[in-house]
Amino acid sequence: MKIARFSHGESIAFGVIDEEEHDLVVLKSDPMFAGYDPTGERVPLAEAKLLAPVIPRSKVIGVGRNYRDHAAEFGNEAPAEPLLFLKPNTSVVGPNDAIVLPALSSHVDFEGELAVIIGSIAKNVRVEDAASVVFGYTIANDVTARDLQKSDAQWTRAKGFDSFCPLGPVIETDLDLAGESVETRVNGELKQSGPLTDMVHSVAEIIAYASAVFTLLPGDVILTGTPAGVGPLASGDSVAITIPGIGTLTNPVRSA
Amino acid sequence: MKIARFSHGESIAFGVIDEEEHDLVVLKSDPMFAGYDPTGERVPLAEAKLLAPVIPRSKVIGVGRNYRDHAAEFGNEAPAEPLLFLKPNTSVVGPNDAIVLPALSSHVDFEGELAVIIGSIAKNVRVEDAASVVFGYTIANDVTARDLQKSDAQWTRAKGFDSFCPLGPVIETDLDLAGESVETRVNGELKQSGPLTDMVHSVAEIIAYASAVFTLLPGDVILTGTPAGVGPLASGDSVAITIPGIGTLTNPVRSA
Repeated sequence: MKIARFSHGESIAFGVIDEEEHDLVVLKSDPMFAGYDPTGERVPLAEAKLLAPVIPRSKVIGVGRNYRDHAAEFGNEAPAEPLLFLKPNTSVVGPNDAIVLPALSSHVDFEGELAVIIGSIAKNVRVEDAASVVFGYTIANDVTARDLQKSDAQWTRAKGFDSFCPLGPVIETDLDLAGESVETRVNGELKQSGPLTDMVHSVAEIIAYASAVFTLLPGDVILTGTPAGVGPLASGDSVAITIPGIGTLTNPVRSA
Repeated sequence: MKIARFSHGESIAFGVIDEEEHDLVVLKSDPMFAGYDPTGERVPLAEAKLLAPVIPRSKVIGVGRNYRDHAAEFGNEAPAEPLLFLKPNTSVVGPNDAIVLPALSSHVDFEGELAVIIGSIAKNVRVEDAASVVFGYTIANDVTARDLQKSDAQWTRAKGFDSFCPLGPVIETDLDLAGESVETRVNGELKQSGPLTDMVHSVAEIIAYASAVFTLLPGDVILTGTPAGVGPLASGDSVAITIPGIGTLTNPVRSA
């Protein structure tokens, strides 16, 4: 099932996408907290502006160097344990929102990634139980100011600017990771393409590892790392990340 | 004015401390958003359990190595620019709540600090305007797993465990930083003592720097760094951080 958060006229709502009817079954509230309770209304997809499908109230957790080929492209080895970092929720934007290149950086890269949406309060989760705390999956662009990532001791600025975490277009609650890949295109040209099974640390392993440190809360988002092929963005570009079972997250790029 | 968030019986409320009457003037809502609107009730301080005075919905921003003597005690120089990191809001606890030593670390340090509470939406704030976005000040313990800080490339785990960000006991809205110091005692023994004016980057400079990266939101907290004298905590310890104009933040320590 594909869940969207969207605006339509003056209101913002959650809905379930009906792909045959090209519309949204409007829900009374956020299904993560209130279940699937339709209002009875339907909104044509063409009339809805899709928003980031989740607003994290606690954490956006990233995992660095989680594909061997991406670690290697910067001369790094994939770390033995997941390399965690945090992005602030003020970096989250939705589909078709602009990625704004900050004046403080002269080299901003895209990073196409699978994002996991946590659905329950979770601490010290075992690998074999990890699937039970997942609400669903979406697509993320872990936008990174590569120059600041290299010059700063911590990645906080490099990965934390406003608009540096596009999420969307929808949350797919039933995704078979084994058959999926992440592909990134800039202005239509394929830049990244990697099967999700190439991750060094699996989604379940990352959830277990992170939940040994932090209590995970509903709405927390985990970005699971990017395959090789990252590259810089310029004002005027359009960057599109596809995970076929979820959809395509497209964002224009502009200068501050 | 000193503002507390507290529980009393079944309810949680905000209040203004009346130091002469030893009680709390109960407010209808969070004064950060709703102003000072008393209910007419008063609660004796002795009957109130003080809670973390703010629950950050977006960011807890830390600044590393912001006192020269602390940077030097680990062989580092104070950085030319503020060294920013993030702590998750799941690390926040209140006065008298336990700091829980995680099994993953064998060396957890206290770090007594001044914390700034942001009161308005703020982006690209100029140094000279920084005071206008401050709601008030509290005390923080930037608890840090020193071994993981050294072994992990990023400080996310080391500074992010549940209970690693005690805040409180109150928010002082009118603090003259020039006359204040931060003092940390473990089991009554003085471990840290430094005037706030020893900061390498001032509160105003940190706000300007951080707001050039992130939009700051009301309730965001900035931990401004710790002076020399940090040291390890053991189960059974009591750690007390005093900034005279605010009060004392005391937390017991226990094993996981």
